[in-house]
Amino acid sequence: MEKVIRVVLAGPRGKMGIEALQLIDRTEHFHLVAAVDYKLGGEQIQKVSPGFKGEAKIYETLEQCIENESFDVLVDLTTPEIGKKHAFLALKNGIRPVIGTTGFTKEELDDLKELASNKELGCIIAPNFAIGAILMMKFSAMAAKYFKDIEIIELHHDQKLDAPSGTALKTVQMIEEVRESKVQGHPNEVETEAGARGADLNGMRVHSVRLPGLVAHQQVLFGGDGQLLTIRHDSMNRASFMSGVKVAVEEVMKLSELVYGLENIMD
Amino acid sequence: MEKVIRVVLAGPRGKMGIEALQLIDRTEHFHLVAAVDYKLGGEQIQKVSPGFKGEAKIYETLEQCIENESFDVLVDLTTPEIGKKHAFLALKNGIRPVIGTTGFTKEELDDLKELASNKELGCIIAPNFAIGAILMMKFSAMAAKYFKDIEIIELHHDQKLDAPSGTALKTVQMIEEVRESKVQGHPNEVETEAGARGADLNGMRVHSVRLPGLVAHQQVLFGGDGQLLTIRHDSMNRASFMSGVKVAVEEVMKLSELVYGLENIMD
Amino acid sequence: MEKVIRVVLAGPRGKMGIEALQLIDRTEHFHLVAAVDYKLGGEQIQKVSPGFKGEAKIYETLEQCIENESFDVLVDLTTPEIGKKHAFLALKNGIRPVIGTTGFTKEELDDLKELASNKELGCIIAPNFAIGAILMMKFSAMAAKYFKDIEIIELHHDQKLDAPSGTALKTVQMIEEVRESKVQGHPNEVETEAGARGADLNGMRVHSVRLPGLVAHQQVLFGGDGQLLTIRHDSMNRASFMSGVKVAVEEVMKLSELVYGLENIMD
Amino acid sequence: MEKVIRVVLAGPRGKMGIEALQLIDRTEHFHLVAAVDYKLGGEQIQKVSPGFKGEAKIYETLEQCIENESFDVLVDLTTPEIGKKHAFLALKNGIRPVIGTTGFTKEELDDLKELASNKELGCIIAPNFAIGAILMMKFSAMAAKYFKDIEIIELHHDQKLDAPSGTALKTVQMIEEVRESKVQGHPNEVETEAGARGADLNGMRVHSVRLPGLVAHQQVLFGGDGQLLTIRHDSMNRASFMSGVKVAVEEVMKLSELVYGLENIMD
Repeated sequence: MEKVIRVVLAGPRGKMGIEALQLIDRTEHFHLVAAVDYKLGGEQIQKVSPGFKGEAKIYETLEQCIENESFDVLVDLTTPEIGKKHAFLALKNGIRPVIGTTGFTKEELDDLKELASNKELGCIIAPNFAIGAILMMKFSAMAAKYFKDIEIIELHHDQKLDAPSGTALKTVQMIEEVRESKVQGHPNEVETEAGARGADLNGMRVHSVRLPGLVAHQQVLFGGDGQLLTIRHDSMNRASFMSGVKVAVEEVMKLSELVYGLENIMD
Repeated sequence: MEKVIRVVLAGPRGKMGIEALQLIDRTEHFHLVAAVDYKLGGEQIQKVSPGFKGEAKIYETLEQCIENESFDVLVDLTTPEIGKKHAFLALKNGIRPVIGTTGFTKEELDDLKELASNKELGCIIAPNFAIGAILMMKFSAMAAKYFKDIEIIELHHDQKLDAPSGTALKTVQMIEEVRESKVQGHPNEVETEAGARGADLNGMRVHSVRLPGLVAHQQVLFGGDGQLLTIRHDSMNRASFMSGVKVAVEEVMKLSELVYGLENIMD
Repeated sequence: MEKVIRVVLAGPRGKMGIEALQLIDRTEHFHLVAAVDYKLGGEQIQKVSPGFKGEAKIYETLEQCIENESFDVLVDLTTPEIGKKHAFLALKNGIRPVIGTTGFTKEELDDLKELASNKELGCIIAPNFAIGAILMMKFSAMAAKYFKDIEIIELHHDQKLDAPSGTALKTVQMIEEVRESKVQGHPNEVETEAGARGADLNGMRVHSVRLPGLVAHQQVLFGGDGQLLTIRHDSMNRASFMSGVKVAVEEVMKLSELVYGLENIMD
Repeated sequence: MEKVIRVVLAGPRGKMGIEALQLIDRTEHFHLVAAVDYKLGGEQIQKVSPGFKGEAKIYETLEQCIENESFDVLVDLTTPEIGKKHAFLALKNGIRPVIGTTGFTKEELDDLKELASNKELGCIIAPNFAIGAILMMKFSAMAAKYFKDIEIIELHHDQKLDAPSGTALKTVQMIEEVRESKVQGHPNEVETEAGARGADLNGMRVHSVRLPGLVAHQQVLFGGDGQLLTIRHDSMNRASFMSGVKVAVEEVMKLSELVYGLENIMD
């Protein structure tokens, strides 16, 4: 049997928070000790998630929660600003933070890194919790070592404003670290309709599809002599982020330093 | 048992011609009577296709062939110029032409149409023999009646010079006949990298992927509330054209007029 | 401008009903006159759908609703039993029914058919409202005329109990109407692991994938010489049914007889 | 500039051999020194590959070739029996073997391993040279650590006799090394048509599609909460094996021991 990990959740009311509550509730070796929500101080967790099976009090602040409760991991799904404060506060009190937010400056990360190492505590900052998307990016970077001709097709619902998607840009960036710039396609190729060949990122072509009915999807295509390798991720709904939260909570217990990005704890 | 159709093939030496010989050879109710090739007059068909099972003489000209042989259908896989001449010559002599070439002017088509109708003979002009590609286009036009949000992704080997492909443009054209112009995507969407959203053809977005390892592929995506319909065609090699030649030879026997485009004899 | 169609919805509380309310609310030429719900008689529609923009009273029975309101179409998303009664009652009162339910006996359908024809009123019975799925099946039956080698892969979430899915079986049935039985694959092929080649339905192979993360998907593959044609439908959520309800409400106004199955009003 | 690697090819007449000649010819830092073919002793390589640009004599035996020529790597694409002999002979003479064949016994591999280590020479035995397929298997084993619900769909031309394919079985085996047995799908799921759920390999489901027009394809699907990860490999023709031969020739130069399987030199 796995050792139970005692968790406090900051931000239980948000969309991610509600999913996280369900994850904790159905994971046998996770135990929700309490939650932190500045609007719901004093309430029980059922105020947020009526069907939640265990008991857990909601504290107005993390300080109060730390004073009154004993726990291993803080899962923070609040805002970048609060997330930062919570990360430092948790570490100082011997608690391992899992922070699902971006927006740390280089300096803040350095400070946090030093604090975690001094305390010999794990600390995970994860801008993206979708395990499948992270594996897609990781595998893409690995495949790029053998296949230099790469195109990315990302497909999203038609309410998305920006193209290409952040995940596509992050994928390109991870591939670029292992692949030299390469002009793909025929040197004399001609676009008879502007834009047909997609965006050109250092030779890689990126195509953004926007249609109603789509959610969030991406495929990375690698072409070689007589063969094609395709890595595809489909995210159907927000629940897709929870597998990453689970991995992070489990792994942060084994670490004694800061890790930025789930890709660095997955092998 | 199906009635045997007697066929003469013009252009047996070309890439399409060689495939057509194999098709005729293995189709029980097709019988190759002769072939026409200005370079190989007098030879037997085995000169071109060593394993061919039947006997068939090669004539230098279609005129000579018509004088000496009796047959139902002329399959012409030569050049536009020769194809045109052969079409008229065949019809005048009571033979049904299947012409696999483009380049007829409006006037030439009108003349041919009149001749076919007067003679009450079938005549098929087919710029594209790939049955699967034709069905893809036909279904796309049908689906466009119910799904107004459409994107096309066409994927070809990286030696292809033009983007988008001719098939993609033809698909767009067939869809436009049933779909009013519509701006797709979010009205405020922004390309942070130019070209990401593909070519804009009357509101439809077309994306051209070019990679080694690919042959000739296209998928048409239709998005609607909570659903996606995708029609995809993969052409792996030249043999994909032969199913269309077969259909054309069979259907031309039932027609008594000119038909332009295989899509018009497929239901 | 399109003429406004006055609609009454029976079954507004169900999952489909709630989606239908949203559809009616956002469709300019649909006007919700009233709803029928035996539990909510006397309430306003906002009791069910708080953000609904128009006014509409809920009646306990369809009889009461017909007595008090004037409308064109009854959309029934209740149970098979109630749906049947409602269909007859509506027609007798000059109202066109759109019934989203199965379970009619041959006799009941015949009676309904006669009633609709006598009254010269449209009536649509639709076991499946997903336009995309219906097009997939329709196109599959059309493609089967040209491609005799067909396999179906249907993919659903892992809580689904039956395999193959109803849609896969219905697809096979529609293909069988145009395709003679054919043994596919190599005559000497061997399954070294039982079940690898899927279910054998009259020669067609059907494969059922069940995984968490999937919703409801199906692809029909047609293989021919050197080419592949694939028709795929992805249903991401219940909203996918609403496009069919919209088409049915519009088409039932143009009909003067009973139609069973949306595929028969789509061309 | 990369250092030129001097190569001898055994088995130049076979289908793989012919492709290998093209690969060597167009790879700037590969130089074909000679070939070995028991039927063509004394001929020049153009006898096999008329357009080959360099000069290379064909020897009847590897022994003769070693006596007369100086080279770095032996690429062996002959039969298992000859491949074995050549591997030992090459190592004994200070030459690094790349053997594209299976059929070594455990004992033979042990002997070869010892010989390679003693000689401090690289030696690669590769049952599969398709880099893309190997990456697909490698990534699948990695993803299985995070996604326990896995199904495999492999698709081949309809002349293939065995189902599932060898690659599918090898993929299952590599996944099993990191994944505990797990019963997938709903515990009460029912096949209303036998075989629909595919072959059951330790809980993983494997589906084999056979259609004309297909070549050799496989996709591995990983399902999780609200997401799907798919890894797909398409092999369009025999050229797909050559990228692996290239990698093997380059890597064998850096090794000083035996490696079995290309997956073990790819990171």
